[in-house]
Amino acid sequence: MSVTFALMAQNRPIAIAIHGGAGDIRPDNLPPEKARVVEAFLNNLVEAAYQQLREGRTALDVVEFAVKSLEEAGYFNAGRGAVPNARGEVELDAAIMDGKTLRTGSVAAVRLAASPISLARLIMERTPHVFIVGAGADSLAQTWKLPLRNDLPNTTPEVPWSYGTVGAVALDQYGNLAAATSTGGIAHKLPGRVGDTPIIGASTYAENNLIAISTTGKGEYFIRTVLAYDIAARIKYQNLPPYQAIQKAFQDRLETIGGQGGLIAVTPTGETFTYFNTPGMYRATLNSRGEKTIGIFR
Amino acid sequence: MSVTFALMAQNRPIAIAIHGGAGDIRPDNLPPEKARVVEAFLNNLVEAAYQQLREGRTALDVVEFAVKSLEEAGYFNAGRGAVPNARGEVELDAAIMDGKTLRTGSVAAVRLAASPISLARLIMERTPHVFIVGAGADSLAQTWKLPLRNDLPNTTPEVPWSYGTVGAVALDQYGNLAAATSTGGIAHKLPGRVGDTPIIGASTYAENNLIAISTTGKGEYFIRTVLAYDIAARIKYQNLPPYQAIQKAFQDRLETIGGQGGLIAVTPTGETFTYFNTPGMYRATLNSRGEKTIGIFR
Repeated sequence: MSVTFALMAQNRPIAIAIHGGAGDIRPDNLPPEKARVVEAFLNNLVEAAYQQLREGRTALDVVEFAVKSLEEAGYFNAGRGAVPNARGEVELDAAIMDGKTLRTGSVAAVRLAASPISLARLIMERTPHVFIVGAGADSLAQTWKLPLRNDLPNTTPEVPWSYGTVGAVALDQYGNLAAATSTGGIAHKLPGRVGDTPIIGASTYAENNLIAISTTGKGEYFIRTVLAYDIAARIKYQNLPPYQAIQKAFQDRLETIGGQGGLIAVTPTGETFTYFNTPGMYRATLNSRGEKTIGIFR
Repeated sequence: MSVTFALMAQNRPIAIAIHGGAGDIRPDNLPPEKARVVEAFLNNLVEAAYQQLREGRTALDVVEFAVKSLEEAGYFNAGRGAVPNARGEVELDAAIMDGKTLRTGSVAAVRLAASPISLARLIMERTPHVFIVGAGADSLAQTWKLPLRNDLPNTTPEVPWSYGTVGAVALDQYGNLAAATSTGGIAHKLPGRVGDTPIIGASTYAENNLIAISTTGKGEYFIRTVLAYDIAARIKYQNLPPYQAIQKAFQDRLETIGGQGGLIAVTPTGETFTYFNTPGMYRATLNSRGEKTIGIFR
């Protein structure tokens, strides 16, 4: 009985997708040796995350782990590698969503917390709220004794200009979907500017039996079009296949107002999707059939 | 020709709905004399807003006017009457959306600006961003020389406990829909807590030829369910009549996770709707047939 269960568990679909931002990333502005380093990082991370799913960790834990790793990498505009705003200060946004319960946690304009995604997760778990910004969020990071940015060496991103976001979406053995996104936002942004990353339904959305999405791009356009939930709604209410829902949301909605960016998605059956209308997007996927993709350029 | 045009313009549908928050508002906790004062205020405001629409003002201008009036009234948990957070400080959130262009402006955790909705409108019009929080937003209010809270007498709300939000939705002669929402948030909230009010798609949403919505309630639940845009999507992708879309979004989505609150909506044909699952909601509507409703209790 327990053997059968173990065998069945192994056959339950798992899947993971990660991104390190979409933007003007082209072979002529990303030297091959840097591309190789970033590709190797994405490859190792997507395999490590997949292994965790295989071992039975939840989608929620795994997307937090993946986004935290992307924040710590220093290659991307998030966490350690975040770009400064118009006043030369780093302000970070992040969100996490559990597709099983629709529980969410978000932070924005955070300056002290080293890992905005972990702070967002704790806000979800330890407060009656789902979104806390600025000094209020940082003071929770201090109260909870989370690592602070000052404790760590910070970098500026080593890779070419992107809309500067990292994200992860996953399906676990138990059928749960989760999504997480973290960003330094747009360089030279006005202090306090919030993009789509921490906005549930704009950038980050997960609902079991439906889809998990994490976007990257010019956040203002994703907010105005409620893009992530628009895709979910097309699947749910129009019965569109996920890729068509994504394509239609971009073409009929985001692009009609001039929006640029990309996304990753995972479905309840363990399919993974990447989509972007920019020259490049740092991305890696590993689906339920064990098929892996790693990419940077179109 | 100009006469014909003027006559036609007069026949084009216009409509307005306003709210002053949903919550535990009952005849036994709201004395009749206070109820009469608030009803008279709502009645005057909905008529003034309707008159402006009749005179050709845009839906965007009229929802800003209506919400600013509700902020200034001091009766509601927004603007002048906002309730303090856990540290005894007032922090305000607001959003405005133009259904014609899908342009939006939002603020959160604002302490200085006397009218968060007008600050949100100017962020939409004068910056490349759509959402600015905290001191960054307040510093724009100072730069733009907007009235500050310190310049005005502040009050605590005189009316019974509500989820403390005000909002307006409108249809203008030109077929444009707009929505605006403003709040002091939940009393005793953690500093920096952001509710659904400034989140496009959660509380505030407007799209021409579809619907304009402003919600009020326990914001966390509206964020997690992307409630306003879920209603819009049910109309757009499932072809549901607006009232059914609202009812289904509440019953099948908001209430399954325990959400409480209400909303107002206006359609492209000038129908108005109010909906709430709390004991009461301060509300007034004036539809395209000139039918007016004013209400507080269920």
